[in-house]
Amino acid sequence: MSEPPKSITAAILVIGDEILSGRTKDANIGYIADYMTNIGVDLKEVRIVPDEEAEIVAALNALRHRYTYVFTTGGIGPTHDDITADSVAKAFGVPIDVDERAVELLLTRLKREDLNEARLRMCRIPQGADLIVNQISAAPGFKLGNVMVMAGVPRIMQAMLDAVAPTLETGAKMLSQTVEAGLPEGAYAAGLGDIQKRYPQTSIGSYPHFNTSGGGFNNQIVVRCKDADMLADAVAEVVALIEKLKAERGV
Amino acid sequence: MSEPPKSITAAILVIGDEILSGRTKDANIGYIADYMTNIGVDLKEVRIVPDEEAEIVAALNALRHRYTYVFTTGGIGPTHDDITADSVAKAFGVPIDVDERAVELLLTRLKREDLNEARLRMCRIPQGADLIVNQISAAPGFKLGNVMVMAGVPRIMQAMLDAVAPTLETGAKMLSQTVEAGLPEGAYAAGLGDIQKRYPQTSIGSYPHFNTSGGGFNNQIVVRCKDADMLADAVAEVVALIEKLKAERGV
Repeated sequence: MSEPPKSITAAILVIGDEILSGRTKDANIGYIADYMTNIGVDLKEVRIVPDEEAEIVAALNALRHRYTYVFTTGGIGPTHDDITADSVAKAFGVPIDVDERAVELLLTRLKREDLNEARLRMCRIPQGADLIVNQISAAPGFKLGNVMVMAGVPRIMQAMLDAVAPTLETGAKMLSQTVEAGLPEGAYAAGLGDIQKRYPQTSIGSYPHFNTSGGGFNNQIVVRCKDADMLADAVAEVVALIEKLKAERGV
Repeated sequence: MSEPPKSITAAILVIGDEILSGRTKDANIGYIADYMTNIGVDLKEVRIVPDEEAEIVAALNALRHRYTYVFTTGGIGPTHDDITADSVAKAFGVPIDVDERAVELLLTRLKREDLNEARLRMCRIPQGADLIVNQISAAPGFKLGNVMVMAGVPRIMQAMLDAVAPTLETGAKMLSQTVEAGLPEGAYAAGLGDIQKRYPQTSIGSYPHFNTSGGGFNNQIVVRCKDADMLADAVAEVVALIEKLKAERGV
């Protein structure tokens, strides 16, 4: 048997009271999830925590020791509730101060006399970090160890992700194929479980979707695998199962 | 000084590979967040984990001991990847088996001869749990201790939340007011931080929003507090700060 493809893993840490209160609807998790799948990184966990240093530090330390990469979003602006950079420095136990590289970036958009204390707060970068620049906002994110610290505003976060992605190690890309079931889940669940057991290197899921325009549920079966041949074999078995069940029912 | 209003807290545990892969975009977190704010429950943390028993058990035990309530979504269907009910039973250390109350519910929609092993899987309810019924799907969720186990399909989850919400203890409702800044964050950050220090029982946030139709960023300042008078006082100070800064700049 060949070696299973190497797995590169990631977690997302969303930082922000505004997400937990419902005021802002997160748009970054789904975007990063798609992005990771496309570049061959397995997103394994997401946490959303409030703007509280102890919470950010604890969550970051739990995640960064466990996964290849951690992406944080939110809390890197100039206001008092933007405490992500200082919290990350604390989690790593490294000093943090105004970084001249970040100051230079801000000065490309601001006059030096407008560089007040609050704006200098956006230049606080933990020692040893690389900046993550973006074209939307002058204020940078940063990469410290395996942690990528990014903005919460989706447009800026997306630009930062584009900037940092080429520096990441990636693994085999997860391939997937979807089969429209056209049957209730309860009709094919046993057979599908049997296929999953015979193809342990695939991940087979069944996803009901409620059809709001009538007709009840539409069910989709998704087979995921990093090996194209194995994926094709498992999908062929799923299709055969569904066709057999439909024939039995005269559907 | 009067007692600070009682705080009832909650966490959400989203269970599902399909969210982590990006295939399905979560629509439940934002909905539950709004719902909790409206009924006076403080949502403090969210986690998204894969369909793996050890991950579900660990996350649930971390959350249920820490917050008043935990809401789980996903993984309660009839297929092999639906392992939430068994994982919850394991986390609580209680037995789980087919529950006759759940069977009765399914029989309102299904003939007994269609009640196969897979569908009976949806009737597996941990010992001691109360069912959470809904009108969309016959299969119930359940409430065990302080944990509410709900479906992942938004329409069903919402019906289950409506069913279980009246049984929850709620606290003082968080009130909030938004001030349109009309200035760059860096211009008011220092003054806003001063107001936050003088009103420690409020939570003051500044939220930039990138205007994709041009004009750069719109910033909103949100003041949150459970005490209406204190909220009004803090908001008045924020408004005065913004007006003073605008006057200084001739905006």
